[in-house]
Amino acid sequence: MDLLDCYFKVRKHTEAICSHLQTEDYVVQPVVDVSPPKWHIGHTTWFFETFILKPYATGYQEYNAEYNYVFNSYYEAVGNRVIRTDRGNLSRPTVIEIYRYREYVDDAMTKFLLEEPSAEVRELLVLGLNHEEQHQELLYTDIKYILGHNPLFPAYNKDYVSPKVARSDSGFIKLDEGVYEIGFAGKGFSFDNEHNRHKVYLNAFDISPNLVTNAEYLEFINADGYHDFRHWHAEGWDWVKTHHIESPLYWHMIDGEWHNYSFHGLEPLKLHDPVCHISYFEAYAYATWKGMRLPTEFEWEATAPQFAWGKSWEWTESSYLPYPGFTKAAGAIGEYNGKFMVNQKVLRGASEVTSPGHSRITYRNFFQTHLRWQFTGIRLAK
Amino acid sequence: MDLLDCYFKVRKHTEAICSHLQTEDYVVQPVVDVSPPKWHIGHTTWFFETFILKPYATGYQEYNAEYNYVFNSYYEAVGNRVIRTDRGNLSRPTVIEIYRYREYVDDAMTKFLLEEPSAEVRELLVLGLNHEEQHQELLYTDIKYILGHNPLFPAYNKDYVSPKVARSDSGFIKLDEGVYEIGFAGKGFSFDNEHNRHKVYLNAFDISPNLVTNAEYLEFINADGYHDFRHWHAEGWDWVKTHHIESPLYWHMIDGEWHNYSFHGLEPLKLHDPVCHISYFEAYAYATWKGMRLPTEFEWEATAPQFAWGKSWEWTESSYLPYPGFTKAAGAIGEYNGKFMVNQKVLRGASEVTSPGHSRITYRNFFQTHLRWQFTGIRLAK
Amino acid sequence: MDLLDCYFKVRKHTEAICSHLQTEDYVVQPVVDVSPPKWHIGHTTWFFETFILKPYATGYQEYNAEYNYVFNSYYEAVGNRVIRTDRGNLSRPTVIEIYRYREYVDDAMTKFLLEEPSAEVRELLVLGLNHEEQHQELLYTDIKYILGHNPLFPAYNKDYVSPKVARSDSGFIKLDEGVYEIGFAGKGFSFDNEHNRHKVYLNAFDISPNLVTNAEYLEFINADGYHDFRHWHAEGWDWVKTHHIESPLYWHMIDGEWHNYSFHGLEPLKLHDPVCHISYFEAYAYATWKGMRLPTEFEWEATAPQFAWGKSWEWTESSYLPYPGFTKAAGAIGEYNGKFMVNQKVLRGASEVTSPGHSRITYRNFFQTHLRWQFTGIRLAK
Amino acid sequence: MDLLDCYFKVRKHTEAICSHLQTEDYVVQPVVDVSPPKWHIGHTTWFFETFILKPYATGYQEYNAEYNYVFNSYYEAVGNRVIRTDRGNLSRPTVIEIYRYREYVDDAMTKFLLEEPSAEVRELLVLGLNHEEQHQELLYTDIKYILGHNPLFPAYNKDYVSPKVARSDSGFIKLDEGVYEIGFAGKGFSFDNEHNRHKVYLNAFDISPNLVTNAEYLEFINADGYHDFRHWHAEGWDWVKTHHIESPLYWHMIDGEWHNYSFHGLEPLKLHDPVCHISYFEAYAYATWKGMRLPTEFEWEATAPQFAWGKSWEWTESSYLPYPGFTKAAGAIGEYNGKFMVNQKVLRGASEVTSPGHSRITYRNFFQTHLRWQFTGIRLAK
Repeated sequence: MDLLDCYFKVRKHTEAICSHLQTEDYVVQPVVDVSPPKWHIGHTTWFFETFILKPYATGYQEYNAEYNYVFNSYYEAVGNRVIRTDRGNLSRPTVIEIYRYREYVDDAMTKFLLEEPSAEVRELLVLGLNHEEQHQELLYTDIKYILGHNPLFPAYNKDYVSPKVARSDSGFIKLDEGVYEIGFAGKGFSFDNEHNRHKVYLNAFDISPNLVTNAEYLEFINADGYHDFRHWHAEGWDWVKTHHIESPLYWHMIDGEWHNYSFHGLEPLKLHDPVCHISYFEAYAYATWKGMRLPTEFEWEATAPQFAWGKSWEWTESSYLPYPGFTKAAGAIGEYNGKFMVNQKVLRGASEVTSPGHSRITYRNFFQTHLRWQFTGIRLAK
Repeated sequence: MDLLDCYFKVRKHTEAICSHLQTEDYVVQPVVDVSPPKWHIGHTTWFFETFILKPYATGYQEYNAEYNYVFNSYYEAVGNRVIRTDRGNLSRPTVIEIYRYREYVDDAMTKFLLEEPSAEVRELLVLGLNHEEQHQELLYTDIKYILGHNPLFPAYNKDYVSPKVARSDSGFIKLDEGVYEIGFAGKGFSFDNEHNRHKVYLNAFDISPNLVTNAEYLEFINADGYHDFRHWHAEGWDWVKTHHIESPLYWHMIDGEWHNYSFHGLEPLKLHDPVCHISYFEAYAYATWKGMRLPTEFEWEATAPQFAWGKSWEWTESSYLPYPGFTKAAGAIGEYNGKFMVNQKVLRGASEVTSPGHSRITYRNFFQTHLRWQFTGIRLAK
Repeated sequence: MDLLDCYFKVRKHTEAICSHLQTEDYVVQPVVDVSPPKWHIGHTTWFFETFILKPYATGYQEYNAEYNYVFNSYYEAVGNRVIRTDRGNLSRPTVIEIYRYREYVDDAMTKFLLEEPSAEVRELLVLGLNHEEQHQELLYTDIKYILGHNPLFPAYNKDYVSPKVARSDSGFIKLDEGVYEIGFAGKGFSFDNEHNRHKVYLNAFDISPNLVTNAEYLEFINADGYHDFRHWHAEGWDWVKTHHIESPLYWHMIDGEWHNYSFHGLEPLKLHDPVCHISYFEAYAYATWKGMRLPTEFEWEATAPQFAWGKSWEWTESSYLPYPGFTKAAGAIGEYNGKFMVNQKVLRGASEVTSPGHSRITYRNFFQTHLRWQFTGIRLAK
Repeated sequence: MDLLDCYFKVRKHTEAICSHLQTEDYVVQPVVDVSPPKWHIGHTTWFFETFILKPYATGYQEYNAEYNYVFNSYYEAVGNRVIRTDRGNLSRPTVIEIYRYREYVDDAMTKFLLEEPSAEVRELLVLGLNHEEQHQELLYTDIKYILGHNPLFPAYNKDYVSPKVARSDSGFIKLDEGVYEIGFAGKGFSFDNEHNRHKVYLNAFDISPNLVTNAEYLEFINADGYHDFRHWHAEGWDWVKTHHIESPLYWHMIDGEWHNYSFHGLEPLKLHDPVCHISYFEAYAYATWKGMRLPTEFEWEATAPQFAWGKSWEWTESSYLPYPGFTKAAGAIGEYNGKFMVNQKVLRGASEVTSPGHSRITYRNFFQTHLRWQFTGIRLAK
């Protein structure tokens, strides 16, 4: 598939995700980690305008100089920006205006890409598309948060097809101790944080071929796991008590039965589905209660070829740190990953809302330990 | 004009105010004191449904039981409600759905009012219309805040006509000491907080026939008034320093010239207009700097027949307290005014966005001392 | 009694209050409103040094220039100071060092006062002594807070004699409507906030000769008064819910019996004592629940000659505002009262820990509506 | 040395550290991370009483049942406790009372240790002594914070002898890639977090034999390092801006010259001393600015035999995580280390205030990334 086809496929997929929204759904930001969908629509457009069109497309006319202030996410090198907590306070530009901006940039990109871009630009373009795919996943998670925290619990899309998750009946997978190679190798796109490929020494361990299910997690709840400090980190225990956490996000006890908010609206909890929308603190507490632990990201990568993954991001015990030889790119693009490598945990795998083809076995996602609005689950190791 | 005509006149005026908005403008809540316009549209409708249709209209079918949770403002007696800071987090019900609710209630009210309502209901209806007029003023102030805090500074309505404020050339008005009567008397509607009419003893004083202008207030700024603690209350001084207050709300220094955000967008400061959007703390500091003071609400009421008023709410030195003999109504309606009678200052007059015929010489508005998003100004006394 | 005798009587009384403390009790500040006793010892000394010795005593050598930074309370005109929340973070100067400072200033004052000070100085001296008497009361309230919030509940002084409060068996006292004179008149010391004496018009009202007792207040608690929003201001209701207030400060339910922390330590609640250590919000809620109200400060002053008062500061319905003709003194002394005249309620009377002779019928105390660490009580009016 | 000698040696060293304090210095807690010295005195005593005397010493009479509430640090299994922020609000028990408690426990320990304690108790005793040595270091850091944040900047001890730090003139030390063994092996005491000894694979790297000096760090400051986001983690950049950080803790610019608060009081900055009292964020930013990085804890341990260390704790790039095979002890002692293994960075080495013999090459200290009150420094790797 040529670059222009790729470009449009990705761009249209973003718009398809939003096609089920009402105008009002594009606007709100119920919590700081969530961005309004219209902001995602504008920001992914701004990315191409800022990093490709403005520096490389001769004669390109910036659409609106003030949009840089509105749609910059966190690039300090690109100037001032709306503070993150204020994104949901902006009624303007309107959704229609932002789609107009998007069309303008898409037109300019089309013209530009027809002119055989340089290798440098092609690399930026692929980065931009992978960036937009990351925002596609964020769109799903943010939309779920927006609708799932509305007292009317509206469905996102009644026809949304939830994935089937295959389960293995065989026991834990064993890996022998030894030196293993970790990190991206080969062709195709990868992020800077997957490099350099390097050796790690792993002790022998066992890892489960399956994710923990809702039914299994319910046992933890029913065993009073949320009220026994012994399973928790001190910081996790503070978090549980301060925020009165008693169950995964989106779980609601209604008339004595657990329900779960999904893209279809509120529905009875599906016991055989993997548990989802839990924090690292909860994943750790569950594993501790089971007398096991979470795998490290290296253990995960070394065994992933032997189990099914890709429907739920999996918390690992590893902190998000640079690999040996990691270097940041020059300029604003260098802010993409490196500056977040502190006080975050690595997630591996992919989730039901990850864009097709976006993830791979060396992919490293990362979030802070208390966050739950992503589609996060648990795989046990020992 | 009969009741039904009154009802529709008020209801349509609310909708006319919103006719200049984009859908997105209805949704956001950039600060806790501001409510999203769509919430005002729904809440004023909920008021009639809750206090008239549900208790009095035989056979009335509630539109949606969950709307009580969404559109109750502060009536503890009517059940739980969305916490105030969350109003801007709700994308649903959508604007169209809320207008549909509004139409449903208007239809039911029409049928009901055609059936000769009782005196009790007529009284509630008049209260409901005055309530909606208060929200019309809040709609203007909230819309101004929403658009005036957007980095694009969009105009609300280019054709909005700002009021002309007449100025008197004569000096201060004097009043002799003695006993004066204060509070509502006569026919027509009044709020409970305007009662009982009672006597107060006033010492002799002088009061200005004019409001302080932007030009006069600029002198205070240029005399470094915001940086000299001697003019301020201790609490006001803390407020100025904590929030880095340097000028009235909506003032912006651009290229060395003061600009002001109005319903037309950003424009050069009009020096002869009354200063507006200042807190009580600022009003007090300005008066102190001038060697004068703010009038009490009694001084204001006793002299108001002798000067022009009605374009800008005026801060007084009086705390918002019950008049002798004040009693709260029974039930939820009793929560209308009484429970706010602490730690607020009284404002007198009316502003350019007060609905026609809504105010009167005995009318008492009230806000906390740090608030500035209302159209508030200064009249001096000594 | 001559000035020097007065001076030493007041100064020694301060030290006598502290004579029951351990060194450690002088140091801590468990909440922002409380100051460490050693700070009071230093601050009252600093007052005489700053406002009398430095400007008027020829050849006076300042004890330590850095003490101005440590012991200034809120006088902006006298320079920077330790922020109030940090007073309890200072281990130095030590208690012994502060008493040494106190002795140094007392020696200098003795020499200075023997030289026939001018009328201006005498006036400042009397202000300084009244200021120190105010801090004597604060010492008692702050010490009670420090010891009463310690998990060991140590007694302040087992020999402390609690006052007897006389009760009247006659009913409410009535006052006819009319014009009354309010404010200080005559000779002797008074604060600027008691001036000018002026006329007010009072409607007829009834006022109780007795303060509300613990037994009466218990009825309010047992009638679930802390859980019924109808009795409370909206702001008071927020305060009750946010801080989980269920009873007056210092009340503890132990093994099913109410106890009260007093200067003797924890002891069973004395039912016939006046209720004490309640906020304005609670006083208002209690009065509302009884179908009555709090008196205004004018009603109180007009009837006080007819009832016993002086054991418990009484909340009034009046906001703390300047009297007609009030003017602030020039210089730092002008910051004494005026800058606090916003968002506070007036208290009248005096309490069991007010210094002898310090209060009078025109005396105006004032605190914010949520504060409870003063010896505050309730008198009803209707 | 026998156990009883060890016991007294450690216990007396704690008291010697405090011998330079005034009573008031024992009481205050200027920031949540700092504990009042008297709390350390009591808590280290409580540790022996709770974990040895109460469970093992037949007939032991608890000194005061309420002290468990006062002196428990973070052991959830041992019951409720004073919340950490309140430690500085407690004037009682007094310093003398706590020393009396200490003496009582020391007497009981003496009797008990003379009776040939079991291996289990001996192990707990050694843990208790290592625990007290950790608090000895905390006493130094907390005392420095208490006195160093007092506006009078008192000296702790004019005779305190600062350590000499040897510097190596040779260049960076190189280590070849390969598998290395990490973690405690051999005899003597070690903490659970140093186990299990395990293999890690290290890539080739260079590490400096010297710590970064004040002179070198000044270059970073003078190159505007605190104002250039490119050197910082996103979270570190927020921290710098929110707290207006411009230099290491205890640095003060006075009359154009940098000064440093030390145990001798304020003195001119010693340029050749290692930079100290910096956060991980600052250590990372400095290393990034130099085009280098911090070593991992494994790199540090593998090369530490080749360089001088032990005067300043060194930040590493490693997050504090369990080693393979780590298990928590049963009961309250299991809370010692494991529950803190999240969102903290490992420090290696030891500092000038670490008790003699307390550290070793496998020792792992850990703190949150923003903390600076420990004696923390920088060693560069590349």
